[in-house]
Amino acid sequence: MLDTVIIGAGPAGMAAGIYAARAELSHLVLESGLMSGGQIVNTSEVDNYPGLKGIGGFELAMKFREHCDACGVTFRDGKVTEVKKQENGFLVVLEDGESYTAKTVLFATGAKHRMLSVPGETEFAGSGVSYCATCDGAFFRGKEVAVVGGGDVAIEDALFLARICKKVYLVHRRDGFRAAKTLVNRLRSCENVEFVLKATPARIEGNGKVETLTVVTEAGERALPVSGVFVAVGMLPNTELLKGLVSLNEAGYVMAGEDCKTDVPGIFAAGDLRTKQLRQVVTAAADGATAIYGIETYLNEQ
Amino acid sequence: MLDTVIIGAGPAGMAAGIYAARAELSHLVLESGLMSGGQIVNTSEVDNYPGLKGIGGFELAMKFREHCDACGVTFRDGKVTEVKKQENGFLVVLEDGESYTAKTVLFATGAKHRMLSVPGETEFAGSGVSYCATCDGAFFRGKEVAVVGGGDVAIEDALFLARICKKVYLVHRRDGFRAAKTLVNRLRSCENVEFVLKATPARIEGNGKVETLTVVTEAGERALPVSGVFVAVGMLPNTELLKGLVSLNEAGYVMAGEDCKTDVPGIFAAGDLRTKQLRQVVTAAADGATAIYGIETYLNEQ
Repeated sequence: MLDTVIIGAGPAGMAAGIYAARAELSHLVLESGLMSGGQIVNTSEVDNYPGLKGIGGFELAMKFREHCDACGVTFRDGKVTEVKKQENGFLVVLEDGESYTAKTVLFATGAKHRMLSVPGETEFAGSGVSYCATCDGAFFRGKEVAVVGGGDVAIEDALFLARICKKVYLVHRRDGFRAAKTLVNRLRSCENVEFVLKATPARIEGNGKVETLTVVTEAGERALPVSGVFVAVGMLPNTELLKGLVSLNEAGYVMAGEDCKTDVPGIFAAGDLRTKQLRQVVTAAADGATAIYGIETYLNEQ
Repeated sequence: MLDTVIIGAGPAGMAAGIYAARAELSHLVLESGLMSGGQIVNTSEVDNYPGLKGIGGFELAMKFREHCDACGVTFRDGKVTEVKKQENGFLVVLEDGESYTAKTVLFATGAKHRMLSVPGETEFAGSGVSYCATCDGAFFRGKEVAVVGGGDVAIEDALFLARICKKVYLVHRRDGFRAAKTLVNRLRSCENVEFVLKATPARIEGNGKVETLTVVTEAGERALPVSGVFVAVGMLPNTELLKGLVSLNEAGYVMAGEDCKTDVPGIFAAGDLRTKQLRQVVTAAADGATAIYGIETYLNEQ
């Protein structure tokens, strides 16, 4: 029986692996992707992981993986299909039929951004289409950009970008907002922000890089001349395996605080999949460290 | 009036600087030390900041600083003597008489480890004397070490080191423990742990590296043959400036959760000085990012 099985090999899972290996916990990091790194693998540049200025997402993933390998972290490829509570721990079942028993399970399966699902979105992802203003906003200094969405995150992103960019179009399919009124009012007072409401994104186009976002309004089509499209229409936590196992909130996030403890003793959650304010590489990595500290404490108490 | 003044230039303060600069908040990072980095400057090796395997503490501090400089973070040397609440923000007064006004203040002044204050402690700090088992334990694989202290952290450190090291001496001045009973019982069951109780550390000696910790017991002096001494007799948060300004807990830590908000709107706390479970470079850096997110939200709501 292992001390812990870590499900997911993004920044949270790999940081947890480093801390688990250094603490000499018997462990296994399960990764379902083709390579370690999670969401950052497909990010062209990560500019806000402190200490590694302007590094490529793929390269940052490799740095984490090399760190893991140097510490003796054990990885295994495989997709988890089920996690079951047993008398003295947990059974983790993989798609290929193999299974592992462990005293604790750390879920670090991350989240994915909801997509617009319009032509050009996938093509320009990471080179003009972004799902994170905090991460990528600084690359669009002095340029024109669009933010799509109507919730708090969309308005916060637009406020953030309004300080940095020449002009921000806020594209929303309704004319009302789910976002807090104070935020919306503040955005309305920004001179370089134009609200494009009752508008549905239709396609993103450009020659090698984004040049226009075309939206459909009641008045017909309109091509917004932007070099960046920030999609802020929500996130989908990868928590299918956790349904019925631990408490999730309405949006599907694992209810777990900074200590990464779920409401089931022995099950921990680190990174983007848990309830938290800011989902960044550095906060995911911090979660991995804190979760292993919690797991050590849990094991000490058994 | 600045958007924010960040007091302290360790990992939390510098990470906050990076996030503030990228968000184009008007800001100033005040550093009181001779150079940026905080506690890590005097750490010989930091092996658990994910992505930068086995880097020197000084070098890691430089990497953070270079990242700040590349992002346009503004630094200023100076010791803060007072922070006062004013009508629309805060006044930050420096020792040299200058002062700054800001809408928000982020305290990132860190903490320091309580010392044993015995001969040899300072001499061998970072080369055999450590204040963090999680950070440095892995460097003592297969060796004999001593842990000094009787609280939860000391016992947790000893349990951690018992998995890694050949032998662990737990040195405590009393024969009772403040630590949780389950922890102490678990430590008693470790075959490679020897309790050295009613023992007071007297001196640390060695030729270039630590070779013995001499303790005084009722039976007289005893020289423990160790290559590492882990001091776990408490921490002292650097929160003098915050007394009377925000709520501190009994040990002097700022009462602030993961969101880094204190109980005074506009005052934030990031890093080792706040109430949290695990004080590490990566958790401090995550705090810096999260605090700036909180400051942006706060400014948006004004």
